[in-house]
Parts: sequence; C-alpha cells; structure tokens
Amino acid sequence: MKERELHQLLDLVRLGALPPDRAVARLKHLPFEKGKTPGQVAEIVRSMLRHKASRQNILITRADAAIFKAVRRANPSAKSTAKFHSLSGVITIERSREITGKGQIFVVSAGTSDIPVAEEALLTARMMGNRAEPLYDVGVAGIHRLLEHREKLAAARVIICVAGMEGALPSVVGGLVGVPVIAVPTSTGYGASFGGVAALLGMLNSCASNVTVVNIDNGFGAACVASCINRL
Amino acid sequence: MKERELHQLLDLVRLGALPPDRAVARLKHLPFEKGKTPGQVAEIVRSMLRHKASRQNILITRADAAIFKAVRRANPSAKSTAKFHSLSGVITIERSREITGKGQIFVVSAGTSDIPVAEEALLTARMMGNRAEPLYDVGVAGIHRLLEHREKLAAARVIICVAGMEGALPSVVGGLVGVPVIAVPTSTGYGASFGGVAALLGMLNSCASNVTVVNIDNGFGAACVASCINRL
Amino acid sequence: MKERELHQLLDLVRLGALPPDRAVARLKHLPFEKGKTPGQVAEIVRSMLRHKASRQNILITRADAAIFKAVRRANPSAKSTAKFHSLSGVITIERSREITGKGQIFVVSAGTSDIPVAEEALLTARMMGNRAEPLYDVGVAGIHRLLEHREKLAAARVIICVAGMEGALPSVVGGLVGVPVIAVPTSTGYGASFGGVAALLGMLNSCASNVTVVNIDNGFGAACVASCINRL
Amino acid sequence: MKERELHQLLDLVRLGALPPDRAVARLKHLPFEKGKTPGQVAEIVRSMLRHKASRQNILITRADAAIFKAVRRANPSAKSTAKFHSLSGVITIERSREITGKGQIFVVSAGTSDIPVAEEALLTARMMGNRAEPLYDVGVAGIHRLLEHREKLAAARVIICVAGMEGALPSVVGGLVGVPVIAVPTSTGYGASFGGVAALLGMLNSCASNVTVVNIDNGFGAACVASCINRL
Amino acid sequence: MKERELHQLLDLVRLGALPPDRAVARLKHLPFEKGKTPGQVAEIVRSMLRHKASRQNILITRADAAIFKAVRRANPSAKSTAKFHSLSGVITIERSREITGKGQIFVVSAGTSDIPVAEEALLTARMMGNRAEPLYDVGVAGIHRLLEHREKLAAARVIICVAGMEGALPSVVGGLVGVPVIAVPTSTGYGASFGGVAALLGMLNSCASNVTVVNIDNGFGAACVASCINRL
Amino acid sequence: MKERELHQLLDLVRLGALPPDRAVARLKHLPFEKGKTPGQVAEIVRSMLRHKASRQNILITRADAAIFKAVRRANPSAKSTAKFHSLSGVITIERSREITGKGQIFVVSAGTSDIPVAEEALLTARMMGNRAEPLYDVGVAGIHRLLEHREKLAAARVIICVAGMEGALPSVVGGLVGVPVIAVPTSTGYGASFGGVAALLGMLNSCASNVTVVNIDNGFGAACVASCINRL
Amino acid sequence: MKERELHQLLDLVRLGALPPDRAVARLKHLPFEKGKTPGQVAEIVRSMLRHKASRQNILITRADAAIFKAVRRANPSAKSTAKFHSLSGVITIERSREITGKGQIFVVSAGTSDIPVAEEALLTARMMGNRAEPLYDVGVAGIHRLLEHREKLAAARVIICVAGMEGALPSVVGGLVGVPVIAVPTSTGYGASFGGVAALLGMLNSCASNVTVVNIDNGFGAACVASCINRL
Amino acid sequence: MKERELHQLLDLVRLGALPPDRAVARLKHLPFEKGKTPGQVAEIVRSMLRHKASRQNILITRADAAIFKAVRRANPSAKSTAKFHSLSGVITIERSREITGKGQIFVVSAGTSDIPVAEEALLTARMMGNRAEPLYDVGVAGIHRLLEHREKLAAARVIICVAGMEGALPSVVGGLVGVPVIAVPTSTGYGASFGGVAALLGMLNSCASNVTVVNIDNGFGAACVASCINRL
Repeated sequence: MKERELHQLLDLVRLGALPPDRAVARLKHLPFEKGKTPGQVAEIVRSMLRHKASRQNILITRADAAIFKAVRRANPSAKSTAKFHSLSGVITIERSREITGKGQIFVVSAGTSDIPVAEEALLTARMMGNRAEPLYDVGVAGIHRLLEHREKLAAARVIICVAGMEGALPSVVGGLVGVPVIAVPTSTGYGASFGGVAALLGMLNSCASNVTVVNIDNGFGAACVASCINRL
Repeated sequence: MKERELHQLLDLVRLGALPPDRAVARLKHLPFEKGKTPGQVAEIVRSMLRHKASRQNILITRADAAIFKAVRRANPSAKSTAKFHSLSGVITIERSREITGKGQIFVVSAGTSDIPVAEEALLTARMMGNRAEPLYDVGVAGIHRLLEHREKLAAARVIICVAGMEGALPSVVGGLVGVPVIAVPTSTGYGASFGGVAALLGMLNSCASNVTVVNIDNGFGAACVASCINRL
Repeated sequence: MKERELHQLLDLVRLGALPPDRAVARLKHLPFEKGKTPGQVAEIVRSMLRHKASRQNILITRADAAIFKAVRRANPSAKSTAKFHSLSGVITIERSREITGKGQIFVVSAGTSDIPVAEEALLTARMMGNRAEPLYDVGVAGIHRLLEHREKLAAARVIICVAGMEGALPSVVGGLVGVPVIAVPTSTGYGASFGGVAALLGMLNSCASNVTVVNIDNGFGAACVASCINRL
Repeated sequence: MKERELHQLLDLVRLGALPPDRAVARLKHLPFEKGKTPGQVAEIVRSMLRHKASRQNILITRADAAIFKAVRRANPSAKSTAKFHSLSGVITIERSREITGKGQIFVVSAGTSDIPVAEEALLTARMMGNRAEPLYDVGVAGIHRLLEHREKLAAARVIICVAGMEGALPSVVGGLVGVPVIAVPTSTGYGASFGGVAALLGMLNSCASNVTVVNIDNGFGAACVASCINRL
Repeated sequence: MKERELHQLLDLVRLGALPPDRAVARLKHLPFEKGKTPGQVAEIVRSMLRHKASRQNILITRADAAIFKAVRRANPSAKSTAKFHSLSGVITIERSREITGKGQIFVVSAGTSDIPVAEEALLTARMMGNRAEPLYDVGVAGIHRLLEHREKLAAARVIICVAGMEGALPSVVGGLVGVPVIAVPTSTGYGASFGGVAALLGMLNSCASNVTVVNIDNGFGAACVASCINRL
Repeated sequence: MKERELHQLLDLVRLGALPPDRAVARLKHLPFEKGKTPGQVAEIVRSMLRHKASRQNILITRADAAIFKAVRRANPSAKSTAKFHSLSGVITIERSREITGKGQIFVVSAGTSDIPVAEEALLTARMMGNRAEPLYDVGVAGIHRLLEHREKLAAARVIICVAGMEGALPSVVGGLVGVPVIAVPTSTGYGASFGGVAALLGMLNSCASNVTVVNIDNGFGAACVASCINRL
Repeated sequence: MKERELHQLLDLVRLGALPPDRAVARLKHLPFEKGKTPGQVAEIVRSMLRHKASRQNILITRADAAIFKAVRRANPSAKSTAKFHSLSGVITIERSREITGKGQIFVVSAGTSDIPVAEEALLTARMMGNRAEPLYDVGVAGIHRLLEHREKLAAARVIICVAGMEGALPSVVGGLVGVPVIAVPTSTGYGASFGGVAALLGMLNSCASNVTVVNIDNGFGAACVASCINRL
Repeated sequence: MKERELHQLLDLVRLGALPPDRAVARLKHLPFEKGKTPGQVAEIVRSMLRHKASRQNILITRADAAIFKAVRRANPSAKSTAKFHSLSGVITIERSREITGKGQIFVVSAGTSDIPVAEEALLTARMMGNRAEPLYDVGVAGIHRLLEHREKLAAARVIICVAGMEGALPSVVGGLVGVPVIAVPTSTGYGASFGGVAALLGMLNSCASNVTVVNIDNGFGAACVASCINRL
C-alpha cells in the first residue's frame, strides 16, 4: 500500500483534487519518506531542489538502486551530493552541514540484522542537523563488548537503541546512562518473535526508567524524536 | 503479586539474603514505588527519613488511606509535609523544593478516567524537581477545548499525554507542538479497549513524529523520562 | 481465494450446479464487487448490460488495467461510459445519474495511503445514487486543516471517515458534527498497526457517540451503509 | 477504574482544578452515564434537576438499587418519575415525552443473556426522544421465531441488534430489511467467546451490507447512533 | 512447507531412512492428501495402483492442472477414471462405487468463496463411500433461500457446513435439523476475518447444541469425521 | 452475566414481555442449564415437574449446595430422585431410565482438574438417555495407563475426550479408535495455557482425522453432540 | 480450578472411581504440588508419611499458613522438619539430605517480584536432592551487580533464570556461561506485560544459544528439568 | 531481512565500521547460520578454511543448491567433505570427527513436514561433536509406532522432540523417559496452527515435567542446548 502513496499524491494533483502548493507543502514539511517509484521520487526531488533558497537536507527512505539512478539522472546538479546508503535503503542529499542539535546522539544496535533500521535512524538524525554516531554489534548475549564502550555512551545526550529478538538491549543501555533512550524494536527474528512484537513488548516492559518506545522498524521516527530532544 | 514485593524485601533482609545496605540502596535509588502494606511502607519511609542529610523527596505510588495513616503515625516529624493525593493514590513527602528541571512539563489528559494516571505522572514529575502543570479534560471529541490551550502547550519543554479509549490525543497534541510528547496509554474503557491495548497501539502508530510511548498506566515511568529529558 | 470466486460462479453455472437465473440474480443484487479475471468480469458485465431496461449503475471494485481493457472491448456500447479509477482500482459504468439519496455524503480521510479505500467508498456512494464529495488529507496531526473545512462538514447528512495508523480521525470528526459517522479502518501502516487492527480498535473505542465501524479496508461496505442511511 | 470517574470529577471541582460550570457542562452534555457511588449520583442529579427550564430527560446507566434509593431520597420532587430498570441497571427520570425521532427503532436480541445490553439500548433510545420497541428471544438457532416478526421489522427505520456468542443475528436481520442495522456484540458466553470478541469479529465480517458495529456491550452507544440516524 | 512433504518422503525412502513398505503404509492409510509436485504425486499414485487387489479410491487434494497431467500420463490405465475437479483442486481416481455410509451427507455452504473447501469435503465424503450432496449459496443474509431447502436438509444423516466471514451458517442449520453438524470455517474474507479466525470463533460459540468444529479450511477433515459418523 | 439469565427470564414473564408458555417452551426445550439463584431454579423445576405426563429428565448444570437445597425443599416429591453431583456442580432429577442411544459413550479425561468438565459431559449424556461411562486419569504423559484400557475404548460408539494443558489426549485416543471423538478443551492450567486456548488450538490441529472440537469447558455441549450421534 | 484438584481426587477415591493405590501412586510419583485445602493436604501428607521406608522428601507448593498449620497438627512426628517458606508459599518436609545431583544449580532472578517463583524453583531443586543456591536482585538495568557474581555463575552446572518484565536476564546470563540455562518467565508486571507473555516471548527469542524455556511462573517445572539435567 | 545479514556484515567490513578480526570472531564463534547469498557464503567459508589449525566443523543452515555450488567451487580443497543436505537445507563441512558429547542424542519427530527442522537439529548436533540419531514418523495418532522404539529412547542422554500441529509428542516422549526433552515446535500446519503457535503453546503446557521449549522451527537452537547438556 505504501508504494502507492507517491503515485496517488501526483494523481491527486493531476486530477485537481490537491492543490500543487499543498502537495509541495506536504513534501517540504517532513524529510521525504518512503518514496518508491523512481520517476516519481525524481520528480519530487527536482521540485524540492528548485527552492534554491532552502538549504534543507533531503532524505529518501526505503529506496533502491533504481530510485537512486533516477534521482541522479534527473538532478545533475545534485550529482556530487546525492548518496545511496545501500545498507539501509536511504538516499541523502546534503545541502547543509549546519549542526543544530546541542549534543551527541548514539545509535546502538545488537545484531547485524538490526543494522538497516539503525542506519535509517543514524542517517535521519544526521540529515536533521545532529552529530550522530553508530555503535553496532553490542548484543546482550556478549555483554562485555557493550561495557567496553561505556565511556562513549556516557558522552551521549540522547541514545537510540535498536534491537530485535528479545529487545533486551535498551534495558541494559538505559541502566548504564542517565539520558533518554529511544527504543526501536525491529521485525527481525522468526517464530515467536511475531514480526517484532516480542521485542516491542520487551521494550514497553523495560525495567530501566529512562526508556520510551516507538513503532516496530521505525528508525526514522526514533531519529525524529531524538532530534527533537537534542534541540531542546 | 505487586503487593508482595515490599514484604519480600523485608523478609529477605530478615533472612540475611539481602544485606541491609543493599536494601537501603534499592529504596534510595528510585522514588519509592508501589508500596502496599501499611506497616512495611511506614518502616521504609522511617529508614529513609533517618538519612537526614538527604533532602530527596519521597514518593509512594498506588497507596491508600491505610498506608497514609501508617506513614503519618510512624513519622511524626513528617506530619506537616506528608500528603495523600487520593485521586491518584500517591503519597508525597516533600523535603526539597529545588527545581532542577530546566523547563515546564505539561501533563495533558482526555477523560476523567485518565486522571489517576495523569496525576501519578504530575506528582512524580514535581517530586523529581520539575515545574509541572496539568491540563485535563481536553479529549479529541471536543477538539476546541484543547485548541483554547494552545499557547499554554507552546510554553512546554516536554509534554506527557495520558489517554485511554482510542489513544488519539498524543497525535493531535504532537501536531500542535515542536517538543517531545511522552504518550501514556491507560487501561480505561471496556470491551475492545482490551485493558489499554487499543490506546497503546494507537499511540505506537501515531502520525505525529515527536511521540514516544511507555507502558499502559505507567504514569510514573512517563514522568521519569520527561524529567530525564527536562534535565538535559 | 477472492480471485477464484467469479471463476467458480461461472463453473457452477457450466456444471449445472447453479441455475443461470440464480447467477444473474446474484450479480444483479449487489453492485458487482471484487471481480478479478478480465474475461470473467467482461462476461458478467455483458450479461448485465443486456438487461437494457435496467438503468442500474455497474460497479467493479478491486479491478486493474487488464480488467478495464476487457470490459471496454467486450462492451463497445459501454465505451463512452466505462471509467477506470486507478487510485482505487474501481471501474464504474454509469447508466443513470438519478440522485436517490436525500443529502450529502462526505468521505473524509487522513493520509494519502488511505485514499484508495476512501475513493472506493466515494465511487460506491455515487454509483448508488448519492451526492458524495471527498475531503482528503486532513489528518489529526495537522488539526487546523480539518478545522478549515468545518462548515463543509456541517452540511453533510452522513460522513464516511477513512483512516489507518491510530484511527483517530473519526473521533475528532464525530465531535465536530451531529450526523452519523461511518468509520473505516485501513490496513496502511506497519509494525504495531497489525494490518489495520490498531485503527479498528481505536475506532471501536471512539469517545464520540455518533461513530460506528465497518471492517478493515471496507470502503464499499461503508458506502452501502451510508447510502442506506441517506435514503431514509 | 470506571467507578472512580464521578468521584474524581467532584474532587476536581472541590480542588478548583475544574470550574463548576465546566463540570455542569459535562454532565448536561450527555445523558448521564456510569454513575456508581449513590451519594455522587444523587448530587449530580439534584444539580441537573435545578435547571427547571430544561426538560431534558436524565439517564443513569450501570446503576443499582442503592443508587436508585439515593436518587429518590435526594430528589423528592422526582419521586414520581424516577424509575429503576433492574434488568439493565438503568435509572430514568423522564421530564419530557416529546418524540423527536422520525421513525421507529427496534432493539432485537437473541439470548436472555443479551437482554441487559438490549434494555440499555432501548431505554437510551427512548430517553433521547425515539419510539423504540424490543424484540427479544429471536436467536438464529430458532430462525422461525425471528421470521414470525418479519413484518414488524419491516416497519423499523433503524434496527439495533444485540447478540453475543457467534454474533450471527445482525447478518440475518440485515438480510431481511433495507434499513441500517447497528450491531452490538455482548460479552456473554465463555471460553472461546473471549469476552465478546467472537461476536465482535462476526459482526465486523457480516455478509449483510447494511450492518455497522459499535464496541462490546455498548448498548448506550448503539442507541446514540440510532437516535442520531433517526433524527435525520 | 507443505510442498516439501512428498519430496521428503521419497528422499527418506531413497536414503534408507524410511523402509518402502512403511512409506506405502502411510500412503495407503489415508486418502492421499496434499500432493504438490507432479512427478512425485504420479509416482505415488502409480505404486498405489499396483496394488490391484485393493479397490480403495484415491484422493489427491490441493492439486493443479500440472499434477493432473502427470497423474494421467504416468497411469494410462487410470486414464478413464482420473478426474480433476478444478473448483477444489482435487483429483479423484474412483476404483469402487460401493456405498458404505448408511445415510446421506449434505455439504452446505454460504458464499461462492467457500465452495473450494465445500467441494473438497464433498469429494472426500464421496471417495470414502458416502452418498453426499451439495447445497451451496445459502448464506444467512438471504435466509429464505436456505429455508426453501429445509426438507432436503431434514433427510440428511450428517451435515457438513462450510462458511467464512461471520461463520453464522452452522448455527442456523443446526437449529433446523436434529442431526450432527460438522462446521468448517474458511479463510475467506479480509481485515477482521483474520484468515478464518472470526468464522472459527463464531462456530465454537454456536448457540445450536449439535454443532462441532474442525480446523480452518479443513474440508478434508470434516468429511473424514462425517464419514466416520455415517458408518456408525 | 450468566447468573442473571434466569432472573431476567422471570422478570420478562412478570413484565409481560415474554408469554409464560414461551418461557415454558424455552425451559422444556433443552436440559436446564446454568441455573444459579436457588429460588429461581426451584421455581422452574417446580413448573417443569408439574407436567407429570412428561417423563423428561431434568439437568441443572453449574449448581451449588444452596441451589440443591432449594430444589429439594420446593419439590418434596422429587426428594428421592434429585441428586447433587458436587464434582461437577450438576443436579439431576431422573424421571426416566429409558436408553435411547444405540451404543456406549465413553468420557475420557487426562488430569484431575479436567474431571468437573468430564462429569458434566458424563451426566448430561446419561440424562439424555445414553449408556455413558467414565475413563479418567489417563493423561498422555503416562501413556500406558491409557493403553491398558484400549479394549474398553474399542467398545465405544462415540468418545468424548476432555483435556486441558496441551490438549493432546484426543489425538492419541483418536488414533486408537475408529469412532468419532468429540474433544473438549478445559480452562485448567496457568500461564501460557491462556484459559484453555492452548488446549483448544491443540485439538483443532489434531493429527487424528476423527476428532472434532467444541468450546472450552463445554462438557454439556459435547454430550449433546455425542448423544445426537448416538441416536443415529 | 486448581483448588478443586485435591478435593476431587479424594472424592473419586470415596466414590470408588479411583482405586486408593492408584491415588497413592499419583501422590508418590511427583513432589506434591498445588495443595490448597488444609484438611486434604494434611490427609495426603499423613498417608505419605506412613510409608516409613520411603525417605522421599515431600514438597507442597502454593500453600498458605492455614495449610501449614493443618500439616503440623496432623503429623506430630513431622513437627520438627516441616517448614513453611512464606516467600514462595512452599512447605517442605525433609526426610533425606542425600545429594543425588552431580553439580551446583543456581537460581538467578531479577526483581523482588520474581522471588516467589525463584524460591519455588530453589526449594524444589533442593528437595529433589540438588545443591542449589540463590542469586537474586541482579536485574539487567543494573548490569554490574550481575557481573560481580560472574565467578559464582561459572561454577554452576545448570542455571535457572527467573525474570518478568522484558525477560532479558536469561540472554545476558546465557552469554556469560557455557552451561544450560532454564528460563522461567514470571507474571509480574502490568499493562503490556500481559501476565508474563512479554517475558515469555523475550525468552523464546533469546539470542543466547543455551537457553530453553518453561511455562510462565513454572518454578517447579524449571527445577524438575534442572534436576533431571543435573543427574545426568 | 535475514538475507541481508551477511551482505551487511561484509559491507560493514568494507566501510571500516567493523574491524576484520571482529568479523572473523563473529564467524568463528558460532556455527555459521543463515547464510543466503552464494558469493558471500563462499567468501566466508573460504576465510574460515584458511585457519587450517582449526579443525572446527562448519555448518551452514537454510542454504540451497546455488549456495552449495558456490561453496564447492570456491573451496576446491573442501570438495571432498562439503555436503548438501537437501531435506533440511544444511551444508556441512566436516573437519573433525571427534566426539565430545558424553552420550547419545535422539531427534524424534512426528510428521514428514517436521523433518526439515528435525534434520537441522540432527546435523547441528553431529557437527558439534555428538552422537545423534533420528527417530522420525512417530506421531501420537499412531502411538504404537513410538512405543516400538521405547528401548531405543531409553538409551538416550538427551532427546530433541520436533512436532507441529498440536505439539503433543514431547509430552508422550517425556513420559516414557527420564532424561531432558528439548521440544521444538514447527510452523507446519494451517489455519488454527497459526504458524506454529498451537504447537508452541502445547509444548509450554506439557504435562511431562522434563520438557523445555525453544522457539518455533529452531532446530539449530535445540541442538545447541542438547549439545550443551550432553557435554556436562
């Protein structure tokens, strides 16, 4: 269903049901998410780039190589800055390197399966003007690897914690730091992981008192909240 | 099961399984939560008050009149400051009025059924050194009442949003402000509310990008996170 | 499974298990729903058009371009009136413009992902002889856009409200008007949206007292009920 | 939790957190629902009766004999009109017999266990100014009893259909009439009825196209919707 | 996973892990169910046909045209009797027309979507030596069509009742007859039908006392039970 | 809710909403189930006993000592025959010992916790005119105890199989016999038994092809079906 | 339902449905579990103590002070050895101190709420002839406390790990040791803990490869398995 | 998501985010699981084989013919030892035949559909240095076949029990032996098997006291635990 969104938006404009300026408003309002059809994404990026005064970064999540190709072809001037991050399916067009977040955001994750969601969070946080660093491969079944990085974590202002399976990482991380931890359950796993529900429930029941939770696989949303906190 | 916790803690101390200083550490570590048996709560409060150097506020959630009576009798010196908040079942012993949170926390709720959880959040936030104000009775089915308070909300640094039923309030509030919104689903409702699950799912799927979620009825936890953010 | 229905109906007729007039009765009884195989749909449309006396409109939901092509080819006389609505996958053959509904039906929706279901409802309502207008892109996280249209809503006799995610829109709309609101949850979203369950539960727990609910993605059914009410 | 609502409302007024006129507004706005503590209910009824100009009927759902006694004692002038309906736990104070609904509402139910919810719907519909009649004990496992009343049903403008267990009644009734059917699942049954979920799902999947659904046991809500439709 | 079964059985034989006679025993024991890969099915059918003394009928469920082709080619002697029933995906090889069931089995179903499962039940019942007749298209939303066939139903010794959506048909049928009704929920429907769970729950909560239930879509199993009863 | 049924039935009669003969019809139609209030049950039993011509047995399920006392006091003539079966909470008044069932029904159960439901089934089967015998304490974790009784089972015409926990007994029993097995899941167990859901699912997925299932704890219903089969 | 078990067992004996030696066999077979009614438990303990040759320890789980009193009164000879463990509701009668387990079992738990289940496991393990030690209050949100005990854990042959909330402890413990970890989810928590389901799912998805799981709150079962492993 | 893991690991190494030795550590640490892309798997196997001193066996689960081809081509020296087990999708490269487990592990399974998971468990157990034997096709509906093998089972030190559908096998097996039984639910079945949930719940509620459970389809994990126990 997601894949029809952009298509529909354009159709609505074509049919006169949605005024063009309203469509632009929608597109400008949020980092651009969930683009799928190459031509459509390219079209929208082109219109966003036309607003040269704006120096807002552009973020396209859940993209693929075909979309990246279209974005590059359609926007020659963007060639130098458009980047495709294949691990997470994110395209970034960086137009400003201004840092507006006050502190450091860490994106911590457990298994290699969780990295796509973690990267989506990391890149979103950066595109929104935050200093953000990854700390991957620190699952709770090998607790010493996480503890080796304790000092690093202590320097964070906000932590995004991405985990699937039993979703235990945020509790451990939350116990090690005094700053807010945004927990993101991932849909990795099989059987009784129920597409991320096991991790989601684990995080909602976290015994650490500085943990809050966003939807399953919502790396983008976690970064929005983290960025919002980091601007306070 | 909750009601056995305190009892067990004391038994463990009596049986030598838990060293007294460790028990004290546990009790000091967090605002005191979920005390139930009057004698036990009074005992613990007394030991906490003995640490006169400490000026930490004491918070007892999910209490009742009997517990309050025991707390008052056992701690005559506290008589003037111990207060029982019957709406939320919270007892507070305020030993310090120092404000350590940087901004204002608002606790917003929809229906009258949500007020006990909202009050738990409000009092917890205050006991932890935050300026915190309530904004109740602003459900989404009467949207103008919420909009009347838009300026007030704009002054908040963090918002706690407590709602049962369809859990729609955080989405609307999140769209009105630019600060983090901590959503607390409540177990009010009946039938297909499934003890707060409907509200929980609604909040996890919020279309506002600055909303995160804590467990059902967890007013205490929401205030911990909000306080943690407000100290940044 | 759905896709076999038509096929089976025709097989049953061929095998003598279902008398032809009974099959025709079935097809005439309801607006024609869920046709999938181009040849079959075309066949049925042809038989329906043969009843020239009837001026009943024909509605084919969940169709695609191939089905539309078959419908057009098989029914040259219908060429001028058969229309394919790609946003919703609906084909309409309008044989009568008579308005039998007494008032105005509004179809309100939140996100662009909800538009296919909203359009299915809109077109069904129109084909059933109602004046029906869309009001899209009025999600609760941008509440002012909805409020701008308050007068429009006040003119409705019945409102169909289509929303996914947290399903909060019907509560807000229900609070703004005094007429019945038919809520349609959609299966948009991911993770804890559970294919529309979050929106469904939200709507069943709506705090507005004029809201009733139909099945997930059932735009067709919502329009049937709305039309039924509008003929009272 | 429900039982605390009224108490809290009054406490809020006492504490100054809720202005009295706002409390009155809340109480006047809707028929009075879910009162529990006898003294509180009596207090509110007294304040409502003070508005002599108003001729609005008063409805107290989920009441018991103690509440009824308090209502009668506190409001001697109402003695003649206050009635306690023990089947449904509803108290009615009828101040106006004006019929504002245009047609007849029928409340149909299957088993004797469903009657409390059916009666709540029936009395609510009547207090809201509708002609409303019951048709009970017409379960689908004895289909002829329902069919005997087919003419009666044909005279209805709206039908409320209350059923637990498999929730099949609305489908059968919906197929017999051409008017809207508001289905109310009840929490009767045991085991795999899951407190009304089986009936709720059955009704959401109804194969009749004029059926919509409200929350489990929500007789009050069904009557609100039916009344809203009946005033169109 | 199902599709690997046959393959594995043969591999096990090849690897010596399963003695051939045991494999044959398995295949002979039950009507042959759920064959998928054409070559494998043909192989097994061939080995079964080799037991010429046996006059047991052969039943292959969930087959397709390719499997049918392979069965026909590999078993020329069976050419005349092997039949493919495309509605249900069943292949039958009838080697005996002996009727061992004492009475008549009726297979009743509601919507056209339910027919594949109903046909699976019908053909299984017949292959097991029962007189079995279909009665389709008698959904509860058009109750009179079912009632027209009441005499026919009265002649049944066992009834298999196949229904999706709200699963209400068995309750109505159970109320009309005095013989056992085997209810088969189907996975038709969408949204809140949850793949047949709504129908399953409806049937388990049937208010008719002669209804029992088998798994979702288990037409084969329902016929086994019905046949077992019919031989008593 | 169940406990209000009888009360309501009588109220309805008193209020004229239900004609007395209809009430009697309801009471006569089925063995009397789920009576709770002693006076009401006694009243109904008395009216049933007045029909002296009838020799129908009377069955009261889910009763207790108080109800039994009332039944005995109100019906002195019944004193000699009314029996209270405390294991299952069933009262039986045997007026006829005629055996109308053709064969033997066995009620098999696993753990001692399952016996109340098993006894409800056993007594119901007997009151309906069947030869019925218990076979308890034959759980699958001690399989040899069950196998010792294999010959006994082989003599059954229908088997009712009552089991909680993992609900495995019907599969094993079904594999040992060739007659229909009616499986009754019980709500015994704790934690992941989910009030009988684990047993229910186990039974629906039984690998034995002669097993059908009724609702959780529905010993009465299982006996109705078994009796219905045994009369064929 | 549990509380009726013993009662029923005795009734069955009295009624002749269960031979006394079989009842004794049941009671001897397993450590005696879930006794509730004081008189019954005392009766059974008395009969078990009569077998003086046996030196088997007796274990009564889920008991209370009244049961303990009855056990003591009825069995004067046992007075010196019968002990009531109020934390876990377990009564032990130690008749043998023989150690049959080869190594050390550790029972590790997180929160104070989990201690009743942990103690049930600990005492069961000891009564079954194992060296078993507790290690409580080592939750994952304070990871260093657990790590302080790493050497102790390294000495274990089997570990029982009891945790509620997010159920994360077994993963961390499993990563620290090379021996089997039996995970026991507890029903502590509220809201989205769903009575232990969150912890259960977390444990089933554990990322440590030496973790297996038993039912919610099943401390007794975990100790049975651990004891079984420890005797290998 | 699983299929991206390996890819990501390599990308991380290429991007410098994961030091090569850490990647190697990960790959060496556990038997290599869930490799999907042929080139990647081959690459990793090649690097593992380079550590010639190591004699650790290599295990690739969930592989296919293409992966096997790549493994063989890329590692000519492994040609003689790499084997593809098509039933389970496992590739084994046996470099050591040393037996480190003390006793015999049996892998017992019920239906042919369960064999892929059973084989994954069997091969994993063997690659980890255990004597492990299969015992397949011993479902509970044909209990005598299982009982024929009772002596064989009695010789086991640990039993892995793989079953789908109702998951009853571990209870029966657990009752026959005195050693630990590791139960693996499988996702076979349809309808109310809910992808293995029915079997999972059945196993968690097993009435045998020596049964523990791992995640659905987790043959690999069951073998890890069994191997861990077998080394004690």
